[in-house]
Amino acid sequence: MLTVSQLAERLGADLVGDDSVEIDVVGPLGTAEGSTVTFISDDRYLSDLQDCQAGAIIISKKAEGFNGAQLIVKNVTAALIEVLKIFAPKLKKSVAGIDPLAKVGENISLGKDVSIGPFVAIDDNVEIGDGSVIASGCRVGENTKIGSDTRLDSNVVVYHNCVIGNNVIIQANCVIGSTGFGYSFIEGAHRLIPHNGKVVIEDFVELGPGCCIDRAKYGQTKIGAGTKFDNLVHIAHNVIIGRCCLIAGQVGIAGSSKLGDGVVLAGQAGITDNVEVGDGVMVGGGSAVLGNIEAGKRIWGFPAFESRDALKATAVFRRLPELSKQFKNIVKRVDKLEATEDNRS
Amino acid sequence: MLTVSQLAERLGADLVGDDSVEIDVVGPLGTAEGSTVTFISDDRYLSDLQDCQAGAIIISKKAEGFNGAQLIVKNVTAALIEVLKIFAPKLKKSVAGIDPLAKVGENISLGKDVSIGPFVAIDDNVEIGDGSVIASGCRVGENTKIGSDTRLDSNVVVYHNCVIGNNVIIQANCVIGSTGFGYSFIEGAHRLIPHNGKVVIEDFVELGPGCCIDRAKYGQTKIGAGTKFDNLVHIAHNVIIGRCCLIAGQVGIAGSSKLGDGVVLAGQAGITDNVEVGDGVMVGGGSAVLGNIEAGKRIWGFPAFESRDALKATAVFRRLPELSKQFKNIVKRVDKLEATEDNRS
Amino acid sequence: MLTVSQLAERLGADLVGDDSVEIDVVGPLGTAEGSTVTFISDDRYLSDLQDCQAGAIIISKKAEGFNGAQLIVKNVTAALIEVLKIFAPKLKKSVAGIDPLAKVGENISLGKDVSIGPFVAIDDNVEIGDGSVIASGCRVGENTKIGSDTRLDSNVVVYHNCVIGNNVIIQANCVIGSTGFGYSFIEGAHRLIPHNGKVVIEDFVELGPGCCIDRAKYGQTKIGAGTKFDNLVHIAHNVIIGRCCLIAGQVGIAGSSKLGDGVVLAGQAGITDNVEVGDGVMVGGGSAVLGNIEAGKRIWGFPAFESRDALKATAVFRRLPELSKQFKNIVKRVDKLEATEDNRS
Repeated sequence: MLTVSQLAERLGADLVGDDSVEIDVVGPLGTAEGSTVTFISDDRYLSDLQDCQAGAIIISKKAEGFNGAQLIVKNVTAALIEVLKIFAPKLKKSVAGIDPLAKVGENISLGKDVSIGPFVAIDDNVEIGDGSVIASGCRVGENTKIGSDTRLDSNVVVYHNCVIGNNVIIQANCVIGSTGFGYSFIEGAHRLIPHNGKVVIEDFVELGPGCCIDRAKYGQTKIGAGTKFDNLVHIAHNVIIGRCCLIAGQVGIAGSSKLGDGVVLAGQAGITDNVEVGDGVMVGGGSAVLGNIEAGKRIWGFPAFESRDALKATAVFRRLPELSKQFKNIVKRVDKLEATEDNRS
Repeated sequence: MLTVSQLAERLGADLVGDDSVEIDVVGPLGTAEGSTVTFISDDRYLSDLQDCQAGAIIISKKAEGFNGAQLIVKNVTAALIEVLKIFAPKLKKSVAGIDPLAKVGENISLGKDVSIGPFVAIDDNVEIGDGSVIASGCRVGENTKIGSDTRLDSNVVVYHNCVIGNNVIIQANCVIGSTGFGYSFIEGAHRLIPHNGKVVIEDFVELGPGCCIDRAKYGQTKIGAGTKFDNLVHIAHNVIIGRCCLIAGQVGIAGSSKLGDGVVLAGQAGITDNVEVGDGVMVGGGSAVLGNIEAGKRIWGFPAFESRDALKATAVFRRLPELSKQFKNIVKRVDKLEATEDNRS
Repeated sequence: MLTVSQLAERLGADLVGDDSVEIDVVGPLGTAEGSTVTFISDDRYLSDLQDCQAGAIIISKKAEGFNGAQLIVKNVTAALIEVLKIFAPKLKKSVAGIDPLAKVGENISLGKDVSIGPFVAIDDNVEIGDGSVIASGCRVGENTKIGSDTRLDSNVVVYHNCVIGNNVIIQANCVIGSTGFGYSFIEGAHRLIPHNGKVVIEDFVELGPGCCIDRAKYGQTKIGAGTKFDNLVHIAHNVIIGRCCLIAGQVGIAGSSKLGDGVVLAGQAGITDNVEVGDGVMVGGGSAVLGNIEAGKRIWGFPAFESRDALKATAVFRRLPELSKQFKNIVKRVDKLEATEDNRS
């Protein structure tokens, strides 16, 4: 429980209104109650303020018609992040050291305050940097290097020879460094092409649960610094993803494709193999990307092309049954005009 | 091995035909043999009965031309469920108690006959109700509450502060309560918005393997009572799903969207963020739902609209190359008619 | 480090050029350096050879304009597989025996040199053949049979009564034998139809990480010999897949559908329930297959039909906004022609 004036101090916010209101939770406008601090990051919602019962609001300029306290800040989202941290549930810190129920190989190098949870299996020659946490049930394969302040949640599997940077978060049940889908049909059978490469995950990458990232055949599969994945993303062998990309849920990227920096792929989008997607490209949900995409484009559809054009084509698509009827009608009218013309000549 | 008369008694069925036939397995019409009991739940398959070698059939009214015994019941599917239970493989019951190879935190409250399997990690302040089974390799995070007669299969991860009801089944490798995909781009980096909310899974929910359900930013992500999920479903933060929905394999639902009761989403469908899908809506496989959908609608397509209309539009789509040719032809014919007309004037 | 003449001997290759070059890695044309052996499996890339810095190349006939050594072989891909094996990272062999931190049930039958890793839970009456490796964190359910030289990577869950053949590879976090998505709505609730069947995985099947294969209601879900899966594939109950199929990432196959031999499904394709897909069918990425497909067809699209036709229809689709305008124009012109005609008569 904090008073709004305490909150204002911690956020560096200007406080408007009753400074004694007490706050214990962060919540959305619609369901906010007296001890809730809420926020408005979009002027569209200003009109909802009148009915809002929140004790306080984070907002970028003073609003009219709101009864609670107002915390005026420059960047509402940045302040929201701070306030969510302040009211985050208090959880026990991971215990430093190797749990007696973990199984650790030979020639392991652990930094300061590393926490290895129970039922973790770590193979030989693994390095883990200061402050990293390997939660219960993980497996870390031979020769893999994990940086500092990195977190592997429960049941993550990292195969051998992978490189994971600093400040990385890999949520539960992800698989890193699996063998890719590379076969050659020789003498009546699909024969696996060995995958000698690795996966490199750079600093500040965060992966949602259930993602699978295959190792390279040779060289590396790479996820660039600051890139974030949602749940259940599939990354094939030799894919290269740039920095600060956002890859939403259930996206799949096929072998050897390359994404630039700042690419955004919405949910369930698929990228075919061996294509290049330029910096800052935004791909709409469910799209099938079948070729190279120039930097900065917004594309969508099955297959994907420029979103504006795809939306127009889709609008006509919906009218196709009607257009088809109208077309039949025009054919009849032209038939008739021609018949009249024929009779005349 | 049961005789059909024993079966009839256990099902409350009327028996027609030889009452001494012995049955030891349930199977489909096509491959049924002498000791198989099969069933007909759809009159379309009545004609297949003549070649059917099953020892007995479960059916809603007496059929002609079938040699085996007939078990006449009111509800064929309900009887099928009973008979499948009767002939289910006999498996060892989970042992009550905490396996010596589990790791259990402090201040845990376990009901009667709870079974905690080997390699399970349970954090502090967890409550688990009577008769629930936590299978090998699971992780249950701090403060999470699990009801009675609930089953977590192997390697399920439930993060902190979640609430799971009674009679819930969560199949292997699901993840509940992961942090959602919420970022804000501030000073050159995607900064994670902390997720202070939880996941609430109500009674009688059943989840297929590999599903991932993210916790809410604030408030809750909720799966309503009696809702069932197939495999590898992705549920984003703050999604609210009603009661008795059916969510098929690889469906994805983006952030803050709401489903009413009795919604059916077929495989690989995607629902965009912040939309409302009304009670009883049925969404066809692979559909992309991009807006609110009124209760009771059947929709399909990419993007989805009313199934009947979408099927018609798709039929025209397939004829587009032919229509395009015909259109060129009409243009020529109109050019010619105009030319004739021009010559005339 | 091997000299190219040593390599030539091991590959049975004819050597052209300097036989003293030393090689320690396999890599692609573009980034190859002096100690790299690369390859050309497609004449399209012959022109890239001039700038290639590789120490050696595997190729099917002597090329001009390449400075390094040439290893001339009949089958480039087969030689590539061999050379990748030669330069594969050296990893520790799995230790035979049961890890002291594994939990093994009663009446287990283990072949010679079986390796059961730490934190593995094996239920009663399981059989595992010679040389198989069950990695850390796996669960193997009651009565399941696993063949020889088969590999379950970490955290794989195989439920009861399943049958897994010889030389099978199941990568991390796969789930085999989960209960399928079969419900019947009876008295106001979805009631689960018990799944008494099993999953059968034949010899030489390989599964990418995170795949989920449901058991059959009765009879079996079957994956035919030599079939390979990519990551995060969803297979519903009673699906039958033939031999030597290739199923790419995030594909989903709904209940009771049958695939013939040699079927190829590209990424994110979906097959609806109860359809038959003939031998050798190729389905393009993201396709929705809604009906039976004859052997040998190549199909694509949403919904899928013959790829050639679907590509043509898609090309017209992109021009729909323009065509719609042109159509309006034609309607006006026909209106005008008719008006002229009306005035005349």
